[in-house]
Amino acid sequence: MKLLEERIRKDGVVRPGNVLKVDSFLNHRMDVALFQEMAKEWKRLFAGKNINKILTIEASGIGIAAVAAIEFGVPVVFAKKAKSINLDNDNYTTQIVSYTHRNTYDVIVSKKYLGPEDHVLIIDDFLANGCALEGLLDIIEKAGATVEGIGIAIEKGFQKGGTVIRARGIQMESLAIIESMDPEKGIVFRD
Amino acid sequence: MKLLEERIRKDGVVRPGNVLKVDSFLNHRMDVALFQEMAKEWKRLFAGKNINKILTIEASGIGIAAVAAIEFGVPVVFAKKAKSINLDNDNYTTQIVSYTHRNTYDVIVSKKYLGPEDHVLIIDDFLANGCALEGLLDIIEKAGATVEGIGIAIEKGFQKGGTVIRARGIQMESLAIIESMDPEKGIVFRD
Repeated sequence: MKLLEERIRKDGVVRPGNVLKVDSFLNHRMDVALFQEMAKEWKRLFAGKNINKILTIEASGIGIAAVAAIEFGVPVVFAKKAKSINLDNDNYTTQIVSYTHRNTYDVIVSKKYLGPEDHVLIIDDFLANGCALEGLLDIIEKAGATVEGIGIAIEKGFQKGGTVIRARGIQMESLAIIESMDPEKGIVFRD
Repeated sequence: MKLLEERIRKDGVVRPGNVLKVDSFLNHRMDVALFQEMAKEWKRLFAGKNINKILTIEASGIGIAAVAAIEFGVPVVFAKKAKSINLDNDNYTTQIVSYTHRNTYDVIVSKKYLGPEDHVLIIDDFLANGCALEGLLDIIEKAGATVEGIGIAIEKGFQKGGTVIRARGIQMESLAIIESMDPEKGIVFRD
């Protein structure tokens, strides 16, 4: 998606260690007008898919998923980092490894809000190693729901997540795929 | 707002200890069509206010704030729970007491995304003791920005937050104010 690639080139900051900061428009300050364009693009790419729910994970996926949900006319469920006293014990649970934060954490989805009747589009802001996605797919499998597709804003194409997830045969649409990036040489997108 | 009050009556669950579970439509499964109606109501209530930014706090405020931001035509900034290696050190920081989770945590907003030029509408899902709001107001003050108003989905009117914040003279619009609630007797809304 040219609009997103151009925005990443303009406002993204590449840091050593393959860190891409896009917090000026994607995951701290959120440009919701851009999110609306991204939502329209996913709607086009997943046309014909029978989607009745969007699933994402807190925190940075929530804004993008909410705007996408308006476009698709469906509710969002977001996987929550465990453990709040406001949550039931009746949850699907999975464990996610975070390379960013160098730890492991549990996320949960209430069994009330995901089940065999659901046809799910996963939405998330970033795909790198794919650990968060694997966790969401695990929850969907436990719920007996159907994955209709995965919409990612920015994929780090040089990390393994995209390859691993696509090998499962799931339609995954990343709106910008970064082939390589470097603080001096800049960003190369996959065609 | 009748629509929200009716939804709380229909789908909200009152638990002992003044716990109101609205995770079926507000903060786990998110009914974005309802969020759009809430956004329109805030737009009406804050008509004439010069708002150029919405501020909220992760995680459950983000979806509501994103949908409201579309209605207002402005970006959202969400305060992040510290500390990610993806964040600069150049942040406004404040400390928030959580009665729900019985702990204290720091939240941060990058100095790049909030400043003296900003006229801010705060959006959040719940108001009880007001600790999260006090934190956001502290960040806005540190940034030299102007608070134009506060939009809350559900206020627990029997807790102190509403009184304390309104005493500051800030326009605060809670779309449903709970006067009292009880697992047997149900919910009484403020007129």
